[in-house]
Amino acid sequence: MRVDVVFTPDEAGAAPTGVVVDVIRATSTICQALDAGYVRVFCTAAVEEARALREELGDGVLGGERNAVRIPGFDLGNSPREYVEPAGNTLLLSTTNGTRAVVAAAQRCDRVLVGSLLNLNAVVDAARDAGEDVVVVCAGVRGTLALDDAFVAGRIVELLGWERTDAAEAAARLVTTWGGAEEAFRASKSGRNLLENAPELEADIPFCARESVLDVVPRFVSMHETAAQIAL
Amino acid sequence: MRVDVVFTPDEAGAAPTGVVVDVIRATSTICQALDAGYVRVFCTAAVEEARALREELGDGVLGGERNAVRIPGFDLGNSPREYVEPAGNTLLLSTTNGTRAVVAAAQRCDRVLVGSLLNLNAVVDAARDAGEDVVVVCAGVRGTLALDDAFVAGRIVELLGWERTDAAEAAARLVTTWGGAEEAFRASKSGRNLLENAPELEADIPFCARESVLDVVPRFVSMHETAAQIAL
Repeated sequence: MRVDVVFTPDEAGAAPTGVVVDVIRATSTICQALDAGYVRVFCTAAVEEARALREELGDGVLGGERNAVRIPGFDLGNSPREYVEPAGNTLLLSTTNGTRAVVAAAQRCDRVLVGSLLNLNAVVDAARDAGEDVVVVCAGVRGTLALDDAFVAGRIVELLGWERTDAAEAAARLVTTWGGAEEAFRASKSGRNLLENAPELEADIPFCARESVLDVVPRFVSMHETAAQIAL
Repeated sequence: MRVDVVFTPDEAGAAPTGVVVDVIRATSTICQALDAGYVRVFCTAAVEEARALREELGDGVLGGERNAVRIPGFDLGNSPREYVEPAGNTLLLSTTNGTRAVVAAAQRCDRVLVGSLLNLNAVVDAARDAGEDVVVVCAGVRGTLALDDAFVAGRIVELLGWERTDAAEAAARLVTTWGGAEEAFRASKSGRNLLENAPELEADIPFCARESVLDVVPRFVSMHETAAQIAL
């Protein structure tokens, strides 16, 4: 069995099982929300899509951020700490990089799992149980590599213990160059964006850096127009 | 001044100065050939393009490989050790990943330099002297990250000493996880392909792993149909 990593959604790389990672903060938020009791999450890239979907469904909590800050008129931001208690059954989450990565993975994988450090062991076990090759699809930042996602990809590679592509080997090697996840996250573009644009959300970084505290494996269910539906 | 790295030619990433790296072996061969006395190199992706170009030019040495082995009917392979003496003025080099990377860089950079370990100091000095932001464009293998190119990108990042994007930081960190270039090259997909398909060319690996032994800076001149012309 082999594990591959793509550091940006545009890169070539396909496998039967895909694990999407946008650890700061979309996939951490999705894991936290579904663990807390939300039944499903719709990821949309555009803000207006999230609003239109709530109109259509007649229900749903609007969550999301632009430049790390809550979108005006939305119920919640994109901080996983806002999702430890459910505020409804359906979460409509507007997130640019995360949605793009989920859609990219759905186009090239038979099954798509949502990964973060919060559910690390659970998602690795699910990927292993699927019994087929894995590609970790990192969301990155605007089409470029993000060190926080690369770190999580490396942890997944380490735990799977399978044959590695060069990219997977690179991810695993990167992990060894840091003292831990929080150090990597703070150094990453995603972490620096968060600290610059919303310093009051600094606690999100250690929150997202905790390993295997949630036993959930969110899965891509289907596309709903341009929204990716995710559930347990 | 800032330095960025793209590990595959498809990734987003643009800067005024591009440095293309396909260290095993296209860009090492180009540096060696121009240092030896070839006046210009045309890089083509398809074998037939190289043949057609020689027909058109009425002159030229045909070089290149498929799966590490010399193309049937070609004068030379893609081993830089075949280019320490010139066999003509013009080299027509057929190389899939390297050509793709040069063309990708030419589309998004004002100037494109050809980098390898052989000309490391020279190309870094030229990039610095250009006085503008740099992106290192790694050729990779079939659209995926290759550890050998990532290693060279990291060395360029280290020597420039500029502000780093996340990808540039990742490349520099990867360098620190190896005992040296040869170790990285042997572990890489490109190195393993070479050793598997043409074990008699093993000496190419230590040859390409030598740092700053050539004082040349090959530059992309222009496209000639689908061929990229490179000269000093």
